Amino acid sequence: MTWDALPAGVLIDDPDVVAGYAHDQSRLTERATPSVVLAPRSTAEVQACLRAASAAGVAVVPRGAGSGLVGGANAPAGSAVLSLHRMDRVLEVDPVERLAVVQPGVVTGDLRSAAAGAGLFYPPDPGSVAFCTVGGNVATDAGGMCCVKYGVTGDFVEALEVVLADGRVLRTGTRTVKGVAGYDLTSLFVGSEGTLGVVTEITVRLLPAPAAPQTLVASFDRLASAGDAVARIAAAGLTPSLLEVLDRTTVRAVDAHAGMGLGDVAALLLVQSDDAGPGAAALLEQVESHCTGAGAVDVARSDDAEEAAMLLEARRLALPALERLAADRGGDWLLDDVCVPRARVVDLIGAVEAVAHDLGLTIGVFGHAGDGNLHPTIVYDHTDPDGRATAMRAFDRITEAALALGGTITGEHGVGTLKRHWLTRELDPVALDVQRALRRTFDPAGVLSPHAVL
Amino acid sequence: MTWDALPAGVLIDDPDVVAGYAHDQSRLTERATPSVVLAPRSTAEVQACLRAASAAGVAVVPRGAGSGLVGGANAPAGSAVLSLHRMDRVLEVDPVERLAVVQPGVVTGDLRSAAAGAGLFYPPDPGSVAFCTVGGNVATDAGGMCCVKYGVTGDFVEALEVVLADGRVLRTGTRTVKGVAGYDLTSLFVGSEGTLGVVTEITVRLLPAPAAPQTLVASFDRLASAGDAVARIAAAGLTPSLLEVLDRTTVRAVDAHAGMGLGDVAALLLVQSDDAGPGAAALLEQVESHCTGAGAVDVARSDDAEEAAMLLEARRLALPALERLAADRGGDWLLDDVCVPRARVVDLIGAVEAVAHDLGLTIGVFGHAGDGNLHPTIVYDHTDPDGRATAMRAFDRITEAALALGGTITGEHGVGTLKRHWLTRELDPVALDVQRALRRTFDPAGVLSPHAVL
Repeated sequence: MTWDALPAGVLIDDPDVVAGYAHDQSRLTERATPSVVLAPRSTAEVQACLRAASAAGVAVVPRGAGSGLVGGANAPAGSAVLSLHRMDRVLEVDPVERLAVVQPGVVTGDLRSAAAGAGLFYPPDPGSVAFCTVGGNVATDAGGMCCVKYGVTGDFVEALEVVLADGRVLRTGTRTVKGVAGYDLTSLFVGSEGTLGVVTEITVRLLPAPAAPQTLVASFDRLASAGDAVARIAAAGLTPSLLEVLDRTTVRAVDAHAGMGLGDVAALLLVQSDDAGPGAAALLEQVESHCTGAGAVDVARSDDAEEAAMLLEARRLALPALERLAADRGGDWLLDDVCVPRARVVDLIGAVEAVAHDLGLTIGVFGHAGDGNLHPTIVYDHTDPDGRATAMRAFDRITEAALALGGTITGEHGVGTLKRHWLTRELDPVALDVQRALRRTFDPAGVLSPHAVL
Repeated sequence: MTWDALPAGVLIDDPDVVAGYAHDQSRLTERATPSVVLAPRSTAEVQACLRAASAAGVAVVPRGAGSGLVGGANAPAGSAVLSLHRMDRVLEVDPVERLAVVQPGVVTGDLRSAAAGAGLFYPPDPGSVAFCTVGGNVATDAGGMCCVKYGVTGDFVEALEVVLADGRVLRTGTRTVKGVAGYDLTSLFVGSEGTLGVVTEITVRLLPAPAAPQTLVASFDRLASAGDAVARIAAAGLTPSLLEVLDRTTVRAVDAHAGMGLGDVAALLLVQSDDAGPGAAALLEQVESHCTGAGAVDVARSDDAEEAAMLLEARRLALPALERLAADRGGDWLLDDVCVPRARVVDLIGAVEAVAHDLGLTIGVFGHAGDGNLHPTIVYDHTDPDGRATAMRAFDRITEAALALGGTITGEHGVGTLKRHWLTRELDPVALDVQRALRRTFDPAGVLSPHAVL
């Protein structure tokens, strides 16, 4: 009845299939069973889905690849999951205006490849770049390793087509480089986690392809020294194209997982520069001196593309490797996503070490050190009968430490359901009130992901 | 009565002083006489102003330096002008996090100087940089000559303090590089032209100071050839730090105004690169070959700072010089601000030339060619008895041409009152409806600049 007006093929109600769309990759978030999956193939079909859901008062959970880590795509009982996976076409790559137009279900890596095919560059590269979608990236304003130089997804979104909760189609933004006609609705939808509308088309700005990066790896015998190096690099005004950190726990896990021979160090910093000509080498030379000044025990530089790819792969394996470590111990993992001012990275690392020590937990620290955006990942095992509760206690203490350091509860993963109660800690009552009023303006009936964010 | 609760000194009701706050620098916009000027010295005083105005139902027009060009700060009869000129302190420059915190009345050039004093760089540089304010720049999302490489004001705003129409204080954004906790309210206020709230504190991101720029000047005997050069430079993926155009009318006016000896050419392109090391020279070498390929009659390069400053001064004098030309003819000027896709700059220039020819008008074309953002400036004189009507007809035809080329009605000056009726041409009914709903959410009683934008 509810879905009778939908075009044939949109509705999926096979319970086995539906079960596969029940939740994202988050841990310790509420899970339930949605009633159906809606898989539209066009903007018109998305409109039909939202009109039917609004008429019936059924909650709709928009979903990209389900690679989120905060439960934003977890579906409440009886809700409809609106999966954009069939809308996966790159519609246009314009090399002169340096724009691409894509449907939301395009895998981020495929957009990057399409851009590269035209000699251009789409920077955003979340850890899940090989399987997450551009629509999902817009929903969370996803980041990645590019951000220290290039910024986040929102910095590249020029225009959107969005289906509102009531089924109307809204177009935001322009294809021009500049434009200030009316309020910036594009930025409002970026990072709104599917609560204001369903994005059905995305116009992104592309950059000229940069030079092949040169790479530096620095190892430290104290994690705090790596944090100090990050602060020195930031204070010197250097802008590498990548500045990532992995701590001992993470390095060991990656080595165990993939046998990369990274060695037993307290911390690794991976740094790249894609500056043109001799700029990259000059920048890394300065980075090297700051690493040495902060007490690095070893620094190696390379312009070998294969070696660079191997090191990046080590970084990308951080979460899978910690996941494997947790599984080997019969336990599980819980990943945080906090961001602090760059100079406070060293303090955040210290806070995480204190939490690990106090609660007797293994916590791997890795992430985008150059942005102050770290992903402390708590590993708990079968020896702790109260594992989940302990993990959540550690998670809360880390998030609290980030706020106390002048940081934010989420740098790039979003609020979802995992951090809903934390949002009320970060935002003051006026800000929360305005956020709620905005949500009501777009979705007065509360159809879109009513369980998430606010 | 209305203002009895205000702290002493906030209210200015001397009619001579009030008259000086009646309008901005726009032409052919409606003007009237406000009842009072409110000049608060603190956020608390802004709150008191808005509470009093809301209680009495008096319209409030927030105002920076009054240098706007679209009538956004024109005060309706009986309204209160809320001038932020007394809130003019640079509160903080943080060299490690590369942030500055300023009050809205800080002159943009003073923020740039404060940043430079810490070895840092605040890129936004509207033509009015010497007297416009950061608060006004936030209101219109102002641009300038930096945008082709560095982007617009909004690209640098990290956090805001805003007083809402009902007097509540809202804080948006974070001091961290990344942050996705809740909707992006910061971007919503940027470019909202004072209609959603009064910005009382602005946190901006700063960049490391770039290298001293190297400069190229190319002259063309056809304006279309300069447009072609712009398209070639864009298509080659080059990113100069400045790419400006001046047409014959503008060059002649600047020469007459300031005796710069720029010569009699159909168009000048000014190009700079502030890339580090040999990068700048390499980039300008490529720019030179594209200019030559497009038919430049003369190309000169220089790394002399004084010469570069002189050329930029010529560009900054474009509007004052055209203003003087109009005054000499006993007439006036009307400036447009349209932005088209980069490859269509040449078509926009052609359209402006056709309008000038058809209507027998002098129209100076100058602007940010590298962004597709031009400022055709109509000069009408005393020989045309119907001068204003003719000028407005030309203005409308140019704006229409920009829309027809896939552009926008405003690249950086905003909608104000001058382009209110044009906003309904650019945005479709759904977008207009959403824009209006957003405005009602923030200002249900319609206290803030009710005459502007929508």
